[in-house]
Amino acid sequence: MAKRARPGSQGALRAANEARLVQALRSAPATQSELAERTGLANATVSNIVRDLRERGAVSTSPTVRLGRRASLVTLEQAGGPTVVGVDFGRQHVRIAIAVDGAGELVEDEIPLPPGHRAEESIAAAVGRLDELLAAASLGRGDIAAICAGVPGPIDSRTGTVLGQTILPEWEGVAASDVAEAFGMPVELVNDADLGAIAERAFGPHGQVDDLVFVKVGTGIGAGLVLGGRLHRSAIGIAGELGHVQVEPNGALCVCGNRGCLETLASARAMAQSLSAALGTPITTADIVRRALDGDPATRRVIDDAGVAIGRAVATAASLLAPSLVVVGGPVAEVGDLLLGPVRESFRRFALHPLTTTTRIERTTLGRRAEALGAVTLAGRSAVDDAFIGGPREARMRSMLDLNEVRA
Amino acid sequence: MAKRARPGSQGALRAANEARLVQALRSAPATQSELAERTGLANATVSNIVRDLRERGAVSTSPTVRLGRRASLVTLEQAGGPTVVGVDFGRQHVRIAIAVDGAGELVEDEIPLPPGHRAEESIAAAVGRLDELLAAASLGRGDIAAICAGVPGPIDSRTGTVLGQTILPEWEGVAASDVAEAFGMPVELVNDADLGAIAERAFGPHGQVDDLVFVKVGTGIGAGLVLGGRLHRSAIGIAGELGHVQVEPNGALCVCGNRGCLETLASARAMAQSLSAALGTPITTADIVRRALDGDPATRRVIDDAGVAIGRAVATAASLLAPSLVVVGGPVAEVGDLLLGPVRESFRRFALHPLTTTTRIERTTLGRRAEALGAVTLAGRSAVDDAFIGGPREARMRSMLDLNEVRA
Repeated sequence: MAKRARPGSQGALRAANEARLVQALRSAPATQSELAERTGLANATVSNIVRDLRERGAVSTSPTVRLGRRASLVTLEQAGGPTVVGVDFGRQHVRIAIAVDGAGELVEDEIPLPPGHRAEESIAAAVGRLDELLAAASLGRGDIAAICAGVPGPIDSRTGTVLGQTILPEWEGVAASDVAEAFGMPVELVNDADLGAIAERAFGPHGQVDDLVFVKVGTGIGAGLVLGGRLHRSAIGIAGELGHVQVEPNGALCVCGNRGCLETLASARAMAQSLSAALGTPITTADIVRRALDGDPATRRVIDDAGVAIGRAVATAASLLAPSLVVVGGPVAEVGDLLLGPVRESFRRFALHPLTTTTRIERTTLGRRAEALGAVTLAGRSAVDDAFIGGPREARMRSMLDLNEVRA
Repeated sequence: MAKRARPGSQGALRAANEARLVQALRSAPATQSELAERTGLANATVSNIVRDLRERGAVSTSPTVRLGRRASLVTLEQAGGPTVVGVDFGRQHVRIAIAVDGAGELVEDEIPLPPGHRAEESIAAAVGRLDELLAAASLGRGDIAAICAGVPGPIDSRTGTVLGQTILPEWEGVAASDVAEAFGMPVELVNDADLGAIAERAFGPHGQVDDLVFVKVGTGIGAGLVLGGRLHRSAIGIAGELGHVQVEPNGALCVCGNRGCLETLASARAMAQSLSAALGTPITTADIVRRALDGDPATRRVIDDAGVAIGRAVATAASLLAPSLVVVGGPVAEVGDLLLGPVRESFRRFALHPLTTTTRIERTTLGRRAEALGAVTLAGRSAVDDAFIGGPREARMRSMLDLNEVRA
């Protein structure tokens, strides 16, 4: 027998063959010789992979008959698939989505958080409500295959820690391991705007859009970038920081140390500060949305100004990335065209001319659900990878996540 | 025999199996059973693919002996591989690179162009010099497997036409088909900064950098984006327009219709305009480089100002993309640290804090050769794809080109 190539490349080949075989099983169960036919793999290769997958519980086999001969039918163990959890930690809320039995059922819930809460309180609240939701579904934490949690800030993928000096000081320095300890199992921490982008592809109407920017307008502003069908997270996990694109060269000081960042002009925090000062009363993000929809002129003006600034920053991002679609989400997007109108108008003014006809700007259709849905999608992917690829999750972390493999 | 899956997916599978087999042959020739062993493919699959590849002239087979038995050794036809051509159309030059016999030999040459020349003149000059270079190598145009040409402007991939309203008016509206007619064979038109990025990976010392931005500072300013190891070209082919990132909100009017674009502050054209006005004599890009290196204070000042502006725009791009590396090339980069110094200082001032330690800024080591080397790399890729994948080239055009498959 010829000598095998380097062990590393053989391992990669093995994983690729296994992935191909699992892919072939997704459409329908098949016998081993049908699998060999479908995939072009040798019978011996198919047989080895099926044996391994069965040992891991990823497939089952049952006797059948083909062309009058006995054969063994291989079935993917997906009916009764993994139960996975997505959590969205916001500034003023925690939202949970549970995909029960591989999304046979989707349980969603949201709880408000008191102003000035600390990260530990958010986490404790999430764990408590998760246990209640699980109990209501006759499940326990032991039934969860994977948890993914979104936080509104950049996460340094080298350390798994939320970076400070941007927004959300209460989360600064919190590590994935801290969250994992509270949940009693590993938790993947992901930037919330990245999760919004994932959700738009997996749950929204944009599954076929390969170049998509999701802009989250909340207490801060962030963006999730899907480029060529893949989520761009960069080597350090910090990408899409649209809130720190400079819009006013000598503008207000930003927590990041720069001046005139988009966040200093267009975030809910900036709007609330202007409005609180002008109206002489504290204003929350919810107040901004309600007052704008009620027609309050001062609130509508700050939203209009914010839209103009966002349109400028989006034009800058589009000059670099030329996305087909920009989806605007986050709590402030709930005012609809009051925000989207000026964003579009400003984009048309500041974007490179060809982009004004090739880049659409839409509001999310997922509303407040986007981030938690993105989290549960990613958790589902982790659970599938655990079953079919194996190895430690960290080793599978990629700077570019291929979203063509991530579907709800 | 079980029924085959959809024909489309079978075709894709066939192509994938073929690519895997070719990959396995790259390291060394192998018998068909060794190939089955190396790839996990069935013997019948291997046999079919080898037969097709041999018919296309992509592999040859020769008798050999393995374990005392007669066998057929399959060899990739790469010694004496395709001869391919890269052309770099600049504002004041045309540069040609010919990779003879699959880069067994690399022929490079550059010719200056007169000021105010038209696109047709550049193309005619390139065709003429190419014929001379081929003749000197005892070759003719019939020996060329593929040509790729870079132009300093965005190319609309939907029409294969150079977009106007940005820079280089003499090229506005020129189509790949016009260039093809002059060369008497298909020519792939690509943005020159994209070619620079490709060259940095293929010929430069940055083959392992997955997130890389190549900034070309010439008459205009453009960027090539490598993200996650893939060139980001977007659905319309217009991406990386760093020259049209706004740096001064109420700055000078740009040809694109916006104000204060980076190009209005930091391109060789903007520098030459300032210097010509101040010095009362026409100044070319070559003059700028020479005068700066000679220590002329006015020239050094405009280069310093340009560097500060470039650093700001690069900081914006980095907030969005967090590249590990920014490579600065183009004719103005020939002044070295006179430009790179202020770029780095300004970047440190304006970039998000974590990026100041994770994004390096370097000058290209390829000098004036970068774009033509990128073009010849891409032409080589097209020739290989012609042989091994087949089908029309346009159909293989991707918005994201995977550079892990493109090596010199």
